[in-house]
Amino acid sequence: MSRLPRLAAITADTAGWGFFLCTAKELRVSRSGSEFLIFTLQDISAQITAKLFDEVTRFQGEFEAGEFVRAEGAATVYNGQLQLVVSSIRRVNPEQDRLEGFREEDCVLSALRPIDEMWTELTDRVRAVADNHLRVLLFRILADHEAQLREWPAAQVIHHAYRGGFLEHIVKMAEVGASVAKAYGANADLVLAGVILHDIGKLQELWYEGGAIGYTREGNLVGHIALGLLVVRETASGVSGFPLELRTQLEHLVLSHHGSREHGSPVEPKTIEAFILAAVDELDARVNQVRRAIREDAAEGEFTTWNRRLGRVLYKGT
Amino acid sequence: MSRLPRLAAITADTAGWGFFLCTAKELRVSRSGSEFLIFTLQDISAQITAKLFDEVTRFQGEFEAGEFVRAEGAATVYNGQLQLVVSSIRRVNPEQDRLEGFREEDCVLSALRPIDEMWTELTDRVRAVADNHLRVLLFRILADHEAQLREWPAAQVIHHAYRGGFLEHIVKMAEVGASVAKAYGANADLVLAGVILHDIGKLQELWYEGGAIGYTREGNLVGHIALGLLVVRETASGVSGFPLELRTQLEHLVLSHHGSREHGSPVEPKTIEAFILAAVDELDARVNQVRRAIREDAAEGEFTTWNRRLGRVLYKGT
Amino acid sequence: MSRLPRLAAITADTAGWGFFLCTAKELRVSRSGSEFLIFTLQDISAQITAKLFDEVTRFQGEFEAGEFVRAEGAATVYNGQLQLVVSSIRRVNPEQDRLEGFREEDCVLSALRPIDEMWTELTDRVRAVADNHLRVLLFRILADHEAQLREWPAAQVIHHAYRGGFLEHIVKMAEVGASVAKAYGANADLVLAGVILHDIGKLQELWYEGGAIGYTREGNLVGHIALGLLVVRETASGVSGFPLELRTQLEHLVLSHHGSREHGSPVEPKTIEAFILAAVDELDARVNQVRRAIREDAAEGEFTTWNRRLGRVLYKGT
Amino acid sequence: MSRLPRLAAITADTAGWGFFLCTAKELRVSRSGSEFLIFTLQDISAQITAKLFDEVTRFQGEFEAGEFVRAEGAATVYNGQLQLVVSSIRRVNPEQDRLEGFREEDCVLSALRPIDEMWTELTDRVRAVADNHLRVLLFRILADHEAQLREWPAAQVIHHAYRGGFLEHIVKMAEVGASVAKAYGANADLVLAGVILHDIGKLQELWYEGGAIGYTREGNLVGHIALGLLVVRETASGVSGFPLELRTQLEHLVLSHHGSREHGSPVEPKTIEAFILAAVDELDARVNQVRRAIREDAAEGEFTTWNRRLGRVLYKGT
Amino acid sequence: MSRLPRLAAITADTAGWGFFLCTAKELRVSRSGSEFLIFTLQDISAQITAKLFDEVTRFQGEFEAGEFVRAEGAATVYNGQLQLVVSSIRRVNPEQDRLEGFREEDCVLSALRPIDEMWTELTDRVRAVADNHLRVLLFRILADHEAQLREWPAAQVIHHAYRGGFLEHIVKMAEVGASVAKAYGANADLVLAGVILHDIGKLQELWYEGGAIGYTREGNLVGHIALGLLVVRETASGVSGFPLELRTQLEHLVLSHHGSREHGSPVEPKTIEAFILAAVDELDARVNQVRRAIREDAAEGEFTTWNRRLGRVLYKGT
Amino acid sequence: MSRLPRLAAITADTAGWGFFLCTAKELRVSRSGSEFLIFTLQDISAQITAKLFDEVTRFQGEFEAGEFVRAEGAATVYNGQLQLVVSSIRRVNPEQDRLEGFREEDCVLSALRPIDEMWTELTDRVRAVADNHLRVLLFRILADHEAQLREWPAAQVIHHAYRGGFLEHIVKMAEVGASVAKAYGANADLVLAGVILHDIGKLQELWYEGGAIGYTREGNLVGHIALGLLVVRETASGVSGFPLELRTQLEHLVLSHHGSREHGSPVEPKTIEAFILAAVDELDARVNQVRRAIREDAAEGEFTTWNRRLGRVLYKGT
Repeated sequence: MSRLPRLAAITADTAGWGFFLCTAKELRVSRSGSEFLIFTLQDISAQITAKLFDEVTRFQGEFEAGEFVRAEGAATVYNGQLQLVVSSIRRVNPEQDRLEGFREEDCVLSALRPIDEMWTELTDRVRAVADNHLRVLLFRILADHEAQLREWPAAQVIHHAYRGGFLEHIVKMAEVGASVAKAYGANADLVLAGVILHDIGKLQELWYEGGAIGYTREGNLVGHIALGLLVVRETASGVSGFPLELRTQLEHLVLSHHGSREHGSPVEPKTIEAFILAAVDELDARVNQVRRAIREDAAEGEFTTWNRRLGRVLYKGT
Repeated sequence: MSRLPRLAAITADTAGWGFFLCTAKELRVSRSGSEFLIFTLQDISAQITAKLFDEVTRFQGEFEAGEFVRAEGAATVYNGQLQLVVSSIRRVNPEQDRLEGFREEDCVLSALRPIDEMWTELTDRVRAVADNHLRVLLFRILADHEAQLREWPAAQVIHHAYRGGFLEHIVKMAEVGASVAKAYGANADLVLAGVILHDIGKLQELWYEGGAIGYTREGNLVGHIALGLLVVRETASGVSGFPLELRTQLEHLVLSHHGSREHGSPVEPKTIEAFILAAVDELDARVNQVRRAIREDAAEGEFTTWNRRLGRVLYKGT
Repeated sequence: MSRLPRLAAITADTAGWGFFLCTAKELRVSRSGSEFLIFTLQDISAQITAKLFDEVTRFQGEFEAGEFVRAEGAATVYNGQLQLVVSSIRRVNPEQDRLEGFREEDCVLSALRPIDEMWTELTDRVRAVADNHLRVLLFRILADHEAQLREWPAAQVIHHAYRGGFLEHIVKMAEVGASVAKAYGANADLVLAGVILHDIGKLQELWYEGGAIGYTREGNLVGHIALGLLVVRETASGVSGFPLELRTQLEHLVLSHHGSREHGSPVEPKTIEAFILAAVDELDARVNQVRRAIREDAAEGEFTTWNRRLGRVLYKGT
Repeated sequence: MSRLPRLAAITADTAGWGFFLCTAKELRVSRSGSEFLIFTLQDISAQITAKLFDEVTRFQGEFEAGEFVRAEGAATVYNGQLQLVVSSIRRVNPEQDRLEGFREEDCVLSALRPIDEMWTELTDRVRAVADNHLRVLLFRILADHEAQLREWPAAQVIHHAYRGGFLEHIVKMAEVGASVAKAYGANADLVLAGVILHDIGKLQELWYEGGAIGYTREGNLVGHIALGLLVVRETASGVSGFPLELRTQLEHLVLSHHGSREHGSPVEPKTIEAFILAAVDELDARVNQVRRAIREDAAEGEFTTWNRRLGRVLYKGT
Repeated sequence: MSRLPRLAAITADTAGWGFFLCTAKELRVSRSGSEFLIFTLQDISAQITAKLFDEVTRFQGEFEAGEFVRAEGAATVYNGQLQLVVSSIRRVNPEQDRLEGFREEDCVLSALRPIDEMWTELTDRVRAVADNHLRVLLFRILADHEAQLREWPAAQVIHHAYRGGFLEHIVKMAEVGASVAKAYGANADLVLAGVILHDIGKLQELWYEGGAIGYTREGNLVGHIALGLLVVRETASGVSGFPLELRTQLEHLVLSHHGSREHGSPVEPKTIEAFILAAVDELDARVNQVRRAIREDAAEGEFTTWNRRLGRVLYKGT
Repeated sequence: MSRLPRLAAITADTAGWGFFLCTAKELRVSRSGSEFLIFTLQDISAQITAKLFDEVTRFQGEFEAGEFVRAEGAATVYNGQLQLVVSSIRRVNPEQDRLEGFREEDCVLSALRPIDEMWTELTDRVRAVADNHLRVLLFRILADHEAQLREWPAAQVIHHAYRGGFLEHIVKMAEVGASVAKAYGANADLVLAGVILHDIGKLQELWYEGGAIGYTREGNLVGHIALGLLVVRETASGVSGFPLELRTQLEHLVLSHHGSREHGSPVEPKTIEAFILAAVDELDARVNQVRRAIREDAAEGEFTTWNRRLGRVLYKGT
């Protein structure tokens, strides 16, 4: 049996084996009364739903969610989505499997761009911030949360939901925000600060471990918008002489970045910079969603299947 | 000319003089090109819109918003609302006017119940809180904000918009919240805490001085829900050993008390106590609005005129 | 095989036999072409979805929806919900099964509080009504509908959907309504009347028999709000000298108790008592829903799984 | 001074005198402090807002709302609407004024078509109803409410708000409903019954006297949809052997005729006839609104001014 | 094995063979891992979901979507809907199968009324149009699109989704529109033109072939409302001397026929004719939906099962 | 009397004379019965509401809307907005008034940036378009509409409502669109085309003459989105060999640029370029609105008065 290509390159007829990260696993009883395993596998390029129907008892103990695995199987199409029907699976034995080419970093769904490169771009932007207090605050944010900012996804499901997705989201928003701020003569440093801070509360709203992700207690009961406010307030209080008016502007950016109350912002944008931040965030999330929907679509023809979240089909082009 | 009765007792034919607090004042040009003064007067019982059409130049300098005044005039009905057409007005001269019975406290629109009595009721409730950390935190809140909590209105316009209105609102909510919590076997201390804390951010969202009221910069850009969260976080950090889970519950109560995102809550109720708090707050505001609309209505018949905020007429009864 | 505990105490590994009421039963064909039975079982404490995959032909005739049954099986988790995979089932043979402890009342999902106790509390409240006409009318309502009021659930699905649920709903609302009315100086007798009458039309909107429940023709075409109005109008016409203004107030309470037109009330609350009734009804339904969602949730951790009706997860606590 | 033409024929430069019904009258104080009278005059063809600025004291007692008046004045345009600036007004002296051509029926805003003609058309349609019970019930409704059905408007403001408007509305709906029912093979008698009964509750919801109109207590607290249901229930109970299923169908038509809960129907259409009734009612009201807006518009050009109720301008044509 | 009756006459116990059109076909893997075929069959009277579980490999190549087939099987109820479990299937062999009575036209789901009869009715209406330009334009539309107008359905799913459905929709709308226009003294020719043109863009929005249907590229990216506008503009430009004002009226009818922006009309009705067209279109679609839901419902009792699209159950009658 | 500064520099105490364009003029009757003129004046920097109360008869004939005027008066604040109370006004006498410095171009409210400069920037962008067909089409659009594109405002009221506003809007959108397209690897030429074409239908939707502006018949009945589609279709048909797929993409951009059906787009964005165009259009309009609201606000303090269109106050800064 040959080795599977990257998951992003798999099609309905592909069969073989590969190394993956398993991020979710459940035992289900089918309507016919037989048990089967349903689980999620990912590699650096994509993730896929997998099912195992035979010898369930034998394989059930061979792996858990959060572990790297070696799996064999064949891709099929189910309800218009690719899935992998797995015939054999076990957790990785690192020493032995490295000989066959196993590398942890190849098994985690990741941003396309190298993380170091994105991090450098972000710190360069912060270095160019003119206002001393603001620059100090932003560097402190980056220092306090570097490990998470480099590794985390930006969300559980909706957009940028992969390793490095958080960083990819803010680096791209920083690029777009800079040119938009320039075009409108807005305060570019404030916009950059808004970009870096707007989702900072997600680092407490979510937990992220071994490719798996979920909501914390504070995430459910307080939420990332309010948690982000607390981070700004506390970090600013640690920067000597941080101006109150500037602090309030930053807090306004964090609180208003969803753009409207219906979308969860307790206050709505009241400054040019807040309008820009909300628009840039919305557009970046939307573009990421659209791109992913087009990339993951398995339908024939020029359009994707119906996208429930966006409420429409999307044009894939000729 | 005889002395006017309390404003709440004035009708369309009343004329005379009285002492009032002026809370707003503006010079306008009528469509016919002549100038007139439009201002708001209040006493302990009600407030009224007043206009001065004659000798504008002479009286314009005789008083300002925020000052106590002595005014003469006659009540008329305009668009279904009582207003006072003032013929003469000047600021109070305390020494001299006290001889005629001027007292500051009679001129400020106030809650019906004595403030000391309400304050005692509230502190008694806090004293009965079982959990030590929670009781300490609530007493600290009361101590830190006592002056404001005793004097402030609960809002700029919509409900409880008078001296002591904030306290009246939370004391009544505490009474209702206690019986509702008991009926449902909910944590009554948490509900009481939610009642006391839910609008605490309004003390920073608004300014209130001399009967006048408005939004602060932080009020507009951060808002009372987020400001309240910051107060809870900071006060809890000052109570040694305050449990994290309890702090999160309190923060959840503050953040979710508007009941839904459309109404400005970034997170929605996820505990019984949060559902109770939101319902009790909504009902207390609604009852206050309805009572005021009925009390201030000057229309004949069993129903008030159309109430724009509530989108209906109200039944005044037979 | 040992006897199963109450359904509310069952967990994923429990197996055994028990007596239940079957409230729904359907034959389905699985995607693999084999038939299976899906049905609902309940006892006094909870209800559960059950499936039977083996010997379908043999067991199909052994029981029907609406009958008491003796079933054997084992609990499993399916999509985060507990279900019972039944291996053997037959209708109860009363004489014989009573020897093993079968009692009808143990097999019907019921309110926690004894019905007689709730009924006494309710009639005591009515006895205390000051207005003669109103008291007479309420006693007539209780007399005319006693059997139903004691036994019926309050709804088909959403809240208080079990034996005695209707009574539990109005008794709890009466308790809360009394304290709220007192706090606001509202007419407590009117609020009590609203509580007793608000859902009275459900006794014609629904049918309820043998634990099963559904909509009647009038329920679908007229609905409980309008049916309740007809009950009030007719009952009042049987009370000699019943004042028209009072009758109109009662009808307003029934018609407006959903609080807004979007929720099905053709008129919206225009009296303090109507505002209180709508708030108390909403809160009681909500608390019941939340409590049930928390009780029935089988997910690990501090939060329930996503609750579709409420559009959120709920906090189960530490 | 010459006699004014019908109000519908007045333009911005018309001056003269005429007989009218005054339907509303109020004393206002202008921003410049002077009092003026604002009132509404109507004749058979249209109604107009009128103002009197000079000698207010003298004319104030010369007429009241609900009286026929003789008024002199000149039309002007104010905010794009015609108004009549009245210089002299007094109540009609019937004996004397009849000599100058005063006739009550010329002074009440009325449907274009003669009432007797419409009444005959309606009774003819009822006579053709096949089902005995239904025909008897409809004739009883016509008999019980003949005086009101012939004279009343269909609403206070929005559509058909003139003498005979109620009848005009149902006669036109009967015509359209008959052809639509035929086209779809629906039960035409049921549709006719729905047309006649759908707004029957308005006869209790409103009062109408001397051209003036308003809401009754039951109108505000119960509303015409529920009041209509009560009329149907009561009238049906007086028709011996009236079938329950038919009664329920009629009640469903009345209750669902606003088409959706947002528009105040506690149940939504569930029969073809109910769908037809709601569509025909909506369209008839809409056409009446559009026609009136076009007829009353005083703007130059092909389009009316912005119509607030419809949220758009309307095309008047070339 | 006997021959199946028309699909509309099939019930849960019917078994046999018949000729059908297959309009969709998919291979699925069941939860138990076995493959099965799911496909749609139709005849002139109805369509039905079919499944084949045995010998999938053998039958998979025996037919494709878009082909006429001969199938054997038995009807069962699944989730309250009838489905056909097929045991044997193959594509039609026209020569041979005609001997057994195969006729293409019997296998395509079709309007009840003969197409020629409807076409004649429509052309008769156009012939009666008074305005020369308009009549010429309408005849050109009919001539340019005759083949499609006679055969196409009116939509992919929601209403009139069968052969001749487009024509049935506009012929019925023409009938209703004519009587409504007459009742209101509207321009009946304009209404007829609106009826014929309003969905003309669907002929480019959709493709329809062999009973199958889908969206074209222009359908997804431009949509039938805008495509219809283009057809009107282009056809009018081919009619010499076509008046601009008339062209604009026609374009307005096409663009506004969904009645509001939320339903996809970029402009809302601003003429009586546009209001009529939108109402007649909405009602015709609704009646068709309701009739089909009632006809296809397999539930016992007086009401259909819950209709997701309409958000309610429907009354089937006694 | 001295010469007034630019209108943008006027404050509440400024008095003097100046040259202006009058864009609207109406005679009104005040509540006190006296007539006055209300009109709008503009110069290159701002516009202002003006009123004339004295000698109305004399001045009424001295000027009309659409004419350049010489006016004398003094600025006052009315309801928080500056207005000019004019004491004398007459139409400009060009020969004579040029001696005092009258220049037409100084009297028309205009974009800040010189039109030639913006035009050059736009044509440079078009010159850089890679696709031949697209470049030819865009140049043809610019050539066909150059005069209007250089002079027109972008809207009647909401944003960019001044001479050159249309051009300013698309030039700024082109700048932002280019950088956003680059950031996301979108087709920058398509985005530019969308920017230039998205509002092209406004040139037929509106008329604009002498600073005055309004809706045409086609504007009201067809609307700029559909009119823009027609321009694209027609212009593309004049470019030999214009690819159908490209034409459809352009039409999709025009039709979807309002982003959602609620905002008037009959189809919603289905390509990355359409998402970008809608976001950039929305943001540019919003920024323009916010900037203007801040610039025109006359309130004291850090925040503007309540902005009805945006539903909030805006932060003007310290």
